[in-house]
This record gives sequence, C-alpha cells and structure tokens, in this order.
Amino acid sequence: MIVQVGILMGSDSDLGVMREASKALEELGIGCEIHVMSAHRTPDDVATYVRAAADRGIRVLIAGAGGAAHLPGVIAAHTTLPVIGVPIASSSMTLGGLDALLAIVQMPSGVPVATVTINGARNAGLLAAQIIATSDEAVRTRLQEMRVKMAESVRAKDRAIQEA
Amino acid sequence: MIVQVGILMGSDSDLGVMREASKALEELGIGCEIHVMSAHRTPDDVATYVRAAADRGIRVLIAGAGGAAHLPGVIAAHTTLPVIGVPIASSSMTLGGLDALLAIVQMPSGVPVATVTINGARNAGLLAAQIIATSDEAVRTRLQEMRVKMAESVRAKDRAIQEA
Amino acid sequence: MIVQVGILMGSDSDLGVMREASKALEELGIGCEIHVMSAHRTPDDVATYVRAAADRGIRVLIAGAGGAAHLPGVIAAHTTLPVIGVPIASSSMTLGGLDALLAIVQMPSGVPVATVTINGARNAGLLAAQIIATSDEAVRTRLQEMRVKMAESVRAKDRAIQEA
Amino acid sequence: MIVQVGILMGSDSDLGVMREASKALEELGIGCEIHVMSAHRTPDDVATYVRAAADRGIRVLIAGAGGAAHLPGVIAAHTTLPVIGVPIASSSMTLGGLDALLAIVQMPSGVPVATVTINGARNAGLLAAQIIATSDEAVRTRLQEMRVKMAESVRAKDRAIQEA
Amino acid sequence: MIVQVGILMGSDSDLGVMREASKALEELGIGCEIHVMSAHRTPDDVATYVRAAADRGIRVLIAGAGGAAHLPGVIAAHTTLPVIGVPIASSSMTLGGLDALLAIVQMPSGVPVATVTINGARNAGLLAAQIIATSDEAVRTRLQEMRVKMAESVRAKDRAIQEA
Amino acid sequence: MIVQVGILMGSDSDLGVMREASKALEELGIGCEIHVMSAHRTPDDVATYVRAAADRGIRVLIAGAGGAAHLPGVIAAHTTLPVIGVPIASSSMTLGGLDALLAIVQMPSGVPVATVTINGARNAGLLAAQIIATSDEAVRTRLQEMRVKMAESVRAKDRAIQEA
Amino acid sequence: MIVQVGILMGSDSDLGVMREASKALEELGIGCEIHVMSAHRTPDDVATYVRAAADRGIRVLIAGAGGAAHLPGVIAAHTTLPVIGVPIASSSMTLGGLDALLAIVQMPSGVPVATVTINGARNAGLLAAQIIATSDEAVRTRLQEMRVKMAESVRAKDRAIQEA
Amino acid sequence: MIVQVGILMGSDSDLGVMREASKALEELGIGCEIHVMSAHRTPDDVATYVRAAADRGIRVLIAGAGGAAHLPGVIAAHTTLPVIGVPIASSSMTLGGLDALLAIVQMPSGVPVATVTINGARNAGLLAAQIIATSDEAVRTRLQEMRVKMAESVRAKDRAIQEA
Repeated sequence: MIVQVGILMGSDSDLGVMREASKALEELGIGCEIHVMSAHRTPDDVATYVRAAADRGIRVLIAGAGGAAHLPGVIAAHTTLPVIGVPIASSSMTLGGLDALLAIVQMPSGVPVATVTINGARNAGLLAAQIIATSDEAVRTRLQEMRVKMAESVRAKDRAIQEA
Repeated sequence: MIVQVGILMGSDSDLGVMREASKALEELGIGCEIHVMSAHRTPDDVATYVRAAADRGIRVLIAGAGGAAHLPGVIAAHTTLPVIGVPIASSSMTLGGLDALLAIVQMPSGVPVATVTINGARNAGLLAAQIIATSDEAVRTRLQEMRVKMAESVRAKDRAIQEA
Repeated sequence: MIVQVGILMGSDSDLGVMREASKALEELGIGCEIHVMSAHRTPDDVATYVRAAADRGIRVLIAGAGGAAHLPGVIAAHTTLPVIGVPIASSSMTLGGLDALLAIVQMPSGVPVATVTINGARNAGLLAAQIIATSDEAVRTRLQEMRVKMAESVRAKDRAIQEA
Repeated sequence: MIVQVGILMGSDSDLGVMREASKALEELGIGCEIHVMSAHRTPDDVATYVRAAADRGIRVLIAGAGGAAHLPGVIAAHTTLPVIGVPIASSSMTLGGLDALLAIVQMPSGVPVATVTINGARNAGLLAAQIIATSDEAVRTRLQEMRVKMAESVRAKDRAIQEA
Repeated sequence: MIVQVGILMGSDSDLGVMREASKALEELGIGCEIHVMSAHRTPDDVATYVRAAADRGIRVLIAGAGGAAHLPGVIAAHTTLPVIGVPIASSSMTLGGLDALLAIVQMPSGVPVATVTINGARNAGLLAAQIIATSDEAVRTRLQEMRVKMAESVRAKDRAIQEA
Repeated sequence: MIVQVGILMGSDSDLGVMREASKALEELGIGCEIHVMSAHRTPDDVATYVRAAADRGIRVLIAGAGGAAHLPGVIAAHTTLPVIGVPIASSSMTLGGLDALLAIVQMPSGVPVATVTINGARNAGLLAAQIIATSDEAVRTRLQEMRVKMAESVRAKDRAIQEA
Repeated sequence: MIVQVGILMGSDSDLGVMREASKALEELGIGCEIHVMSAHRTPDDVATYVRAAADRGIRVLIAGAGGAAHLPGVIAAHTTLPVIGVPIASSSMTLGGLDALLAIVQMPSGVPVATVTINGARNAGLLAAQIIATSDEAVRTRLQEMRVKMAESVRAKDRAIQEA
Repeated sequence: MIVQVGILMGSDSDLGVMREASKALEELGIGCEIHVMSAHRTPDDVATYVRAAADRGIRVLIAGAGGAAHLPGVIAAHTTLPVIGVPIASSSMTLGGLDALLAIVQMPSGVPVATVTINGARNAGLLAAQIIATSDEAVRTRLQEMRVKMAESVRAKDRAIQEA
C-alpha cells in the first residue's frame, strides 16, 4: 500500500493517542507511516523528513503534540502539504490540552495548521482521508460508507434504549 | 474560473473577516464563491447547498462563525468534503473568540472540522489551496512561490531594521 | 402518560447523566421520551424528529452534549419550542465542560437555548417542568411541594450537624 | 396588554442591554414590565416582588446581571416560575462576562436558571415568548413568522453579496 | 465559649472542607457555630439567621459554596458584618472552583465579600480570627504565636532535608 | 482623625483605582493613609511599614496590585492584621485582572488575604470599615445608614424607569 | 560595543514592544542586535542564525512572539544558550496573550525557555543582563544601581502623594 | 563540589517535583543546595538567605511554588541574580497550575522571573545550567552532549516503532 500520510509525534508516550489516526486511515485503505521526531530534540530530522515527504508521495502530514505543541507548526514551516495538528492532553500536563490547542491553532497568517479536537487523532486520520478523497473517488466512497455506518450505529443505540 | 471552494458565513457582519479567504484563493488562481447562510436561521438552505456542493465541483468548504459557532460543524455533518472552520472574534462578542474556537474545534469523533487561527480567514483560504494542491501541480507551485515571497518579505524587513 | 418532553443526546455514553432529567420529570408526573440522535452523525433524523415534535404533543425539548456540543442549537434551529441545553463534561473530554457550555449558551440572536449547569440534567428536567407548569396547575403544585421538601431536607441536615 | 414577563436588573446601567428583551416581547405582542432591583442592595424588594409575581399574572421572569451576577439565582430561589438569566459584560467589568455566565448558569441541583448568551437579552425575550407559546397558539404563530422573516433576511443578505 | 463566628454552607457535602474553618477558630480559642443553610433552597432561613446574627453576638460570618456560589453574597446582602467567602471545588463540579471563585469575589460595589483561597476554609477561619483580633488582644497574641509555630515548622522541614 | 487603615499600592499608576478605597473610608469617618510601596522594588520598606503598622494604630491594611500581584500577600506575611487585596486590571495588562485575582486570592494555608472584586477598591474600603465596625458602634451605624441609602438609590432608579 | 544579546521577532509589527529589551540592555552597557526572522516563514534563517550565535559571541537570545508563538522554542531547539521568551499580546490577537504565554512557557522536558511577563520585553532585557552579570562584575554593579534607582523612584512617588 | 545553584520551595510537599531540578544539575556536574523556605511563613529567612547568596557563590536561584506562588518573585526582589520560577500544580490545588503560572510570570517591569513549564523543575535545572554555561565551557560541553543523547533517544524510539 502506498504511503500517503505521515504521522509524526515528538514522543512515543503519545503513541496510544496517535494510533487512532493510523487506524482510521487503515479502515479507509490509505497507507500511512508513523514516526517519532521532535521539534525541539531533533529539529533537523523533522526538517529533513518533511522536505522530502512530498517527493516520497506523502500527501498529508499529521502531527500530535502536547504542552507548547510546536511540532505541527514547525512541520508546516517546511512544506506546503496540508498539515493536521492534534492537541494532546496527557495526564502529566495539567491544563487539559488548552495549551496544546492554542499553541497549534493560533498560527500566524501564511502558514496554516488544520487543527482538530483535543486528543482527536481519529478525526485527524479522517480529515487526511477527506483531503485525499478530493482527488480519489474510491476513498470518497469509503468515507461516505463510513458515515452511513456511523448513522446506523447511532440509530441502533437509539433502538436499544427504546427497547430497554 | 471553476469554483472549487465555497465560503460560508452566518451573517454578512463577518464578511470583512472572511473576504481574506477569497483574496488568498484569488491570489492562487482558485475560484471560490461566498454565501451568507445560517446554521440556525436557514438550516435547510445550508443542508441543501452543502449536499449539492461536491456535484457542483466544490472541493473544499470554508465556514466562519462566532459565539456558539455551529456553522462549520453543521456543514461537516452533511458532507465528506474537507470543511475548514474559522473562529470569529467580533467586537460584539466578549470572549475574544475562545467560545467560537472551542465550538468549532472540539468536534466529536467521526466528523472533523479543520480549524484555523481565530479570525484567520486568510489561513483558511491557504489551507483550502494546500488541499487542492494535493492533486493540482499548478496550485502547488504557486503556493511554493508564495512561501518564497513571504520569506523575502521577512528578510526585507530585517534589512530595513539593520539599515535604520 | 402523555409524552410532553423529548430528551435527546448524541451518544448513549451520555445516558448516565441525562437519565437525571427523566427522573426529575417522572417525580413530577410528566411524561418524557429519550432518544439518541446526533447533530453530526444523523442530522436529518434530528431535523425530522424536531419538526414533528410539536404536533406529537412535545412541549419542551432537552438536549445534552459535550465538546463542540451542537445538538441543542441544531434542535433550536428547527423549532420554536423551548430548547434546554445540558453541557456535558465527560471523563474523555479534558476541559471540564467549558467547551460544551460555551458551545451551547453563546447562541446567536434569534435562536435561544436555555442553558443549565454543566452535567445539570436534573435541573434541565426541573426547568422543563417549570415551563409546563406555566399552564399546568398540577405540575406547579408538585414543583412547590418539591421545593418544600428540598427546604426540609436542608433543615434536617442542619439539625443533624447540631446534634452530632 | 397583560403583563406576562417581568424583567429585572440590579442597576439601571444595564438598561441599554436589557431593553432588547422588552423589544423582542413587544414585537411578539407580549406585555412585560421592567424593574431595577438588586439582589445585594434591595434583597427584600426582590423577594417581595418575586413571590407576588405569579399571582399578578407574571409567567416568566428575566434577570440580567454582571460580575458575581446573583440576581437570576436569587429570584429562582423565591419562585417556581421559569427564570431566564442574562450574563452581562459591561465595559467596567474586565472578564468579558465569563464571571457573570458562570455565576448564573452553575446553579445547584433543584433550582435551575435558564441561561442565555452573554449580553443576549433579545434571546432572553424570545425564550420567554417560546415558553409562553407552549400554551398560547397566537404567540407560537408569531414566533414562527419571526423565524420565517429571519430566514428571509439571511437570504436577502446572500443575494446582496451575489449581486455586488 | 461565646459564639463569635457563624460558619454556613449550603450542603452538608461541603462539611469536610468547612470543618477546617472551625478547627482554626478552636485552635485560637474562638467560639463558632456551623449551620447548613441554602441561598437557593432555604433563602428565608438564611435571611433570618443573618439578620439576627449581630444581636446574638456573632461578629464574623463565613460561608462556603461551590458552582454558582451565591451563599456568601446573599449573606452579605443582609448584614454589615464582615462576610468571608470560601469557593469550594468539589469533585462533582468540573471547573476546579473557578466558577465558585468568580461568583463569590466579583461582588458589586457596596457589598463586599472577603474571598479566600479555593477550598481555603482554614484561611477563612484565620481571617475571621484576625478580624476579631483587631479588638481582642488575646486572640492577637495567639495568632502571633501561631505564626511563630508555622515558621518553626518550615525551619524544621528545612533541617530535615539538610540532614537527609 | 486617627489613621486606622493603611492603603498601599506598588505604583502610583494604580492611584486612580485605589482612591475609591480612601473615599469610602472618608464617607464613613475612618482615617486612612495612602502609600506607594512595592513588594518587588522596595520590599524592605514594605516590611518596615507593615511591622510598625499595628503599633501606630493601624487596624486594617488594604493593598492593590496588578499582574503577579504580590503586594497583598507580602504584606500578610509580615503581620496578623487583616489584609485586604484588590486585584487591579489596568489597560497595560492584557488578561483582564484574572492574573492579579489568582495571585492575590490563592494564598497558602496559614496566611489569608481577604480578596475583593477586580478593581473593587471601594469594596475594599467598605470591608475595612466592616472590620473596624466589629468593635466600633458608630461605624456600624454609619455602614447601616449607607446600606439604607444604597437601597433608596436603587428604588429611585426603579421609579425613574416606571415614570419614563 | 560587543554584541552579547540577540533579539529576534517574527514580524516587524512587534518592534515597538521588543525595543524595550534593547533599551534596557543599552542602559546597562550591553551590546545587542535586533533581527526580524520567522519560525514559520524563514525557519532556515533562524536555524542558521542561532547555530552561529555562540561563536559570534552571543551569550543570550531573546525572542518575542504572539499567537502560536513558536519562535522562542524553535530557537531553543538549535542552541544551548539561554533563550528568553516574550509572549506578545498585539491588538490583532484576541486572547490577551494567553495563547502566546502558554505556547512559549509549556516547553517539553529538556529544552527550557525562560519566559517573562506578557509584553514584558524590558524584563527580558534585564534578565539577559542578569545572566551576563553572573560572570561580569560591571554589569552586576550596574544592575544593583538600577535597583537602587527604582527604589528611589518608588519612594519619590510616595512622597509626592504625601505632599499632595 | 561548589554550590552554584540554590533551589528553594515553600513546603516540603513540593520536594518530589523540585528534586528534578537538582537531578538535572547533578547530571551536569553543577553543585546545588535545596532549602524549604516560605515567602509567607518565613519571609525574613528568605530575605536573609537570598541576600547572602551571591557572596556564598550562588549564581542562580530556582524557586518552585503553587497557588499564589509568591516565592520566586519575592526572591527576585532581594537579588539581581537570575531567578527561575517553577509553577507547581499539586493535586490539592484545583486550577492545574494556571494560578501559579500567572503569579510567577506576570512580574512587574524591573524585576523579572525566568518562568518555566508547569511542574517543569528539570527544565529549571537545565536553564540554570545554561546560564552557568555562558561562562563555563565544561558545562556548555556537557549540555551539548546531553542534547545529542536526547536526540539519540528520540531516534531510538522511532526505530523501535518502525521495527515493531
């Protein structure tokens, strides 16, 4: 499967949250790769990876980060590929992810980051798929099928309550 | 020029902010249309517009909203096209756009909204262009040229300070 | 018992909180129904249900939601029945319900949502009863009796402390 | 016109904001009265007024307050009529109304206040009308007509942009 | 021992926190009484108690409250005795006591509440003692001795670390 | 007139706000003095002043501060006199006084500061008077008269609205 | 004068704020240089400048930034020189600098940024001087003299009030 | 080993957090001492210690504090040595350290505190080392080696994921 999405995080402690992004992509038949790279500890690795990404066929980048959460913005500085940022609220951080959210979303004019729900890695994966689907009919169809299933699941839960 | 991006807002009082999105798209040669539609006052118009959007060639939707800021999420409920949300902080709202930011970004699992900077309509336009550029070489090239110009502009400002 | 109040939530994970609304209504002899419907996953089901509600005899709608919490506002867009919103702070959301509160209460002019305490589903049920009581003497009497009992309970607790 | 709604505020400095509630009620043909009474400076006047309200034909109470914003909750303690609270963000208060919002909405179990948008006195008036409309067909019809006009106004603004 | 301080709370669930106030007063030889009374459930009991307090010899009132936290301000409306407010952050409230803090401290001009640390009932007791000490030499002396002991305790902890 | 209250601030830029404290005290016939002293720029002056205060007849200390707002707490560390803190939100500070409020109110156990409304220097003056009134019948009477006047003023405003 | 401090900002719109840092350094006889460089628009220029800084004799770096405020952290990733971050609250940003503060101060373990007051560029300059003073007796002496002058200025203001 | 860094905290309950600062310094071969001293309970001990610090060879001071968090600022008032503040979020404080952060970082002009991450004592130790390294080649080398090891650790984690 061709790798079309790169998922980055600064620490493997965020892997539990970020795996939801790769799971969503796998459900939709989109290849992805996961890397631990740090905007602060290995900034050159990040720059090197990001600059080479488009030529390697990567079409969307996803980055998860907590606290001062610079990774998505640092990635966005090195590419014009769409960058999706996931604010992470880990138990060791005490502000519930509000710091990460603001540090990711409040980018200056000219360099956007597409920010999703705090700890919302699944939504990041789905958004990446929606972006790919703008030029990939098959992914679009699978996204629409997933929406139908989601709706069915809500209706099934409603029926279960009515029957209880 | 083919319209590829739909820009929606609930009130024409947000037009001043949201025009920055269409300006950015025009600079990059991407056609867009602007509509006033309200998630709360004309919900059916929104649903009708959004459901027809993909078939009309729209590839990305941008929505700006303040306060309880439902418009981007309501749009996202009716399409699998990428939806970009712009939290708006108007002078009549008193919380600096924090309410709009949270009401846009904290979407439930399954229905993402790509959220950008508060009042960051230009970034919304650029993100839409980055999404389109994943399958449009010409737009990608123009985005990269824009980045080069942005860098030149920063360097010119630095020189101006050194020479002052 | 005639169903006069509809209680909606987007996910059955909120059922534990929202049951407090139906319990309060039952204590006051007011019929209600509970449904799982999602503003984002089944928006058309919500619209269909809400538009038919008044004709089915529903007089007040209660909606609980967390995070971007659009359900109450989306309901309010489809009806002029009073809509009561309950901001939900679940353990998986990290901002203590502040996001849900702002996303529910900060509605634009023209489409109000009557917002109650975070996780305050019992208060939502009582408010629905107070609304019904504006034209139902029996409910009003029961509400006043409930207040008397509440006062007695506070006084009993005070006596218990004095006697300890 | 029978007075069905009492609108209270603690200071006449809030009159500019709160007049929007009476205007909305007047548009809908609902009689109301406005009083300055303070939860902290004239608590007994508030209690006396509120306890007599139902017998005088008042069906809904609206209270606007800023800062520690006790007035709506103090009113709710003295009646089982529905009480609508309007958090007020005045220029002399520095927290944008967040203090007033929390002081109004976070009521303890048993004594709800129906809270609306910060400075949202018009929405308070409309919510009062929606409550009255649960047993008044004429008001319900006028509310629905108002919604139709609101929708027309949005569509007219959209057309103006398309034609610009 | 003469009762000089009245300690009030709206619910006995706050007793664990508020006992720290009475403990501090007991350490300083100041008599106090604890009552459960609610600004919302038994407003008249509160008014009656507070109005009679000064004549019964009460010199300072302490009130603890969470959420919309009206009790201290409601007390202050009925007396010119100093009223000390303790914002309470209970586990069932999700905003960490920020709501209670703002609802207590942001009193309007003319009716102050002396607000202390969130959950800071011990500090409320000490502040009451400091107020009484403005006209009671014995209490002043005991407060000063307590400060000396506090300083000694800090120094002992420092020595323990140095010797570890 | 004997000076019974010391009013301190770290900068004369806060004088406009803090004058309200001295005005309130003057209205009540209580002598006070105002000093500019800084917890950070003249810490020893503060310590010297505070330690001598009680022997000079000072019975209550009021301190206004913005930002990191240490002055009230630093004063409290040097005396067992009651210390009243006024959080100041000046135009050059950008957080609306939330920083000053938290830096003043969240004192550690053992050293309370009686915190009042943001910019609430008048309330600080009144609270100081209430403290003095616990042992001064004349001040108590004047405070009660002030309350009566405040109530009259509210009622006059209400009448003005009714007559308008 | 040898340049010992580099002052960076991402946009010349922050120059008004950041000049306070250079002024403070000039008062203390410490050479500095000011550059406009952007973490997002010219990331490589930043990396190149920062890596060369120590060899050019730079001993401390100061960076001012607003919004997502990555510049200080990005600088810190490329050097072990002390990096001082100034959160900037400009009028176009609506959150009062809270976003910039969190995005600067909440750095991950291993890569600290010394964060100062929002808009506190003068404090950044003074902190840089304090750092240099750890090995420069002359600067230390000048810093102590500055403190003496600051204290004198406070005392002069106090005298002016006493004499008024 | 010469003691170059003094680490202070107001209570030994913060020792668990603050030990990370001394550990970081030990890894870098820098001597430090830890003391429990309180800005509020032993203010004179703090002043005495801080004033003598420079002459005893101390070059940097680190202070951890929670809540109203005055210790770092009080220290900074008594010295021109660089002072590093660590905001502490303990389980008994309910605001996640936001209070401590603001109380430490928002220092007035003239008296900076170098603030680090909430609970970021390790970063405080590293920042102290970076300051010392401005005039100590050996420490600078060790800091650079530590950065290399940090980068290696990130890369090792990335490899572990690729190989999993």
